[in-house]
Amino acid sequence: MNYCSLCGSQVVQRIPPDDDRLRYVCDSCNAIHYQNPKIVAGCIPVWQDKVLLCKRAIEPRYGYWTLPAGFMELGETSQAAALRETFEEANARVEIVNLFAVFNLPHVNQVYLMFNSNLMDLNFSAGAESQEVGLFSRDEIPWEQLAFTTIRYSLEFFFEDQKNNSHRLHTGDIIRNNTGHEFLTGPETRY
Amino acid sequence: MNYCSLCGSQVVQRIPPDDDRLRYVCDSCNAIHYQNPKIVAGCIPVWQDKVLLCKRAIEPRYGYWTLPAGFMELGETSQAAALRETFEEANARVEIVNLFAVFNLPHVNQVYLMFNSNLMDLNFSAGAESQEVGLFSRDEIPWEQLAFTTIRYSLEFFFEDQKNNSHRLHTGDIIRNNTGHEFLTGPETRY
Repeated sequence: MNYCSLCGSQVVQRIPPDDDRLRYVCDSCNAIHYQNPKIVAGCIPVWQDKVLLCKRAIEPRYGYWTLPAGFMELGETSQAAALRETFEEANARVEIVNLFAVFNLPHVNQVYLMFNSNLMDLNFSAGAESQEVGLFSRDEIPWEQLAFTTIRYSLEFFFEDQKNNSHRLHTGDIIRNNTGHEFLTGPETRY
Repeated sequence: MNYCSLCGSQVVQRIPPDDDRLRYVCDSCNAIHYQNPKIVAGCIPVWQDKVLLCKRAIEPRYGYWTLPAGFMELGETSQAAALRETFEEANARVEIVNLFAVFNLPHVNQVYLMFNSNLMDLNFSAGAESQEVGLFSRDEIPWEQLAFTTIRYSLEFFFEDQKNNSHRLHTGDIIRNNTGHEFLTGPETRY
């Protein structure tokens, strides 16, 4: 950020009064430009024992496989965002079952909200951001060609739950370290 | 938004190629300035049968009572944000138990993540943003002087769960309508 989005003057980085961290502030109009994490909302679309994946036709991770997910938009609920992303990326209609996972990714300033969902029918196809879409059982998942760490953990937890007939909310932090990522399991929500 | 925060030129509102909604775009440097919902993270700090509330010393809702909560910052996890807000607003140290609620507020572009937590000790006091802080049992809660709808629902659900010895994740959408707000209960996460 170089310029104030309200008045066009140059901004500076400074800790404002009554604050304790650097912000972009405008000395012309006194605006403080806060920056905050974004929410990525997505689905695990299920058909029998299979999950729908999309092969990405866009960067980042062009050509790698992902669950339908993307940035939540203004005016949406997180479920609406997950449904919209699923339709945009896979032309797929799903019914949301419940919240499956809340993952914090502090190194990229994101929080993932992933939902369990059931495909309404098999009339899906690649959307504009996908090269192809398909259904995969656990053994068919292209584990080495998954786009994001969040997708790998979502699928691992999903199939593990399916095997154990256990269904619970998964919370945790995905932390980038020297050798890759590690998953710190969050405090379990009792039910 | 009037000016491009990258190059300082005036922005226009337009639907970019391969998009379907209005964005602020810069015709000088071609930047697209996306806007997204923010996360509010907070705690329900518990001591025996009581909950810690803060009387707000800042706008909005100056003088009304709230649970400690605030905007998640860059580089944080949602639990870290909840702990930080609890310390900032009430000088209180808590141990997070688990995720208590996920509320969508599409009319203000917020998602609330509220955590169950236990106060570590009684050495709390009003932080800079609070006039006073205190512990309240269900009957002592100033129900008519609560700052936000999210706080009212959080407290109602919390004490109802406490009464029923039931503990589960609460998800739902808080929707503003002509007469106030309504709560649309989200799909239940099975456990």
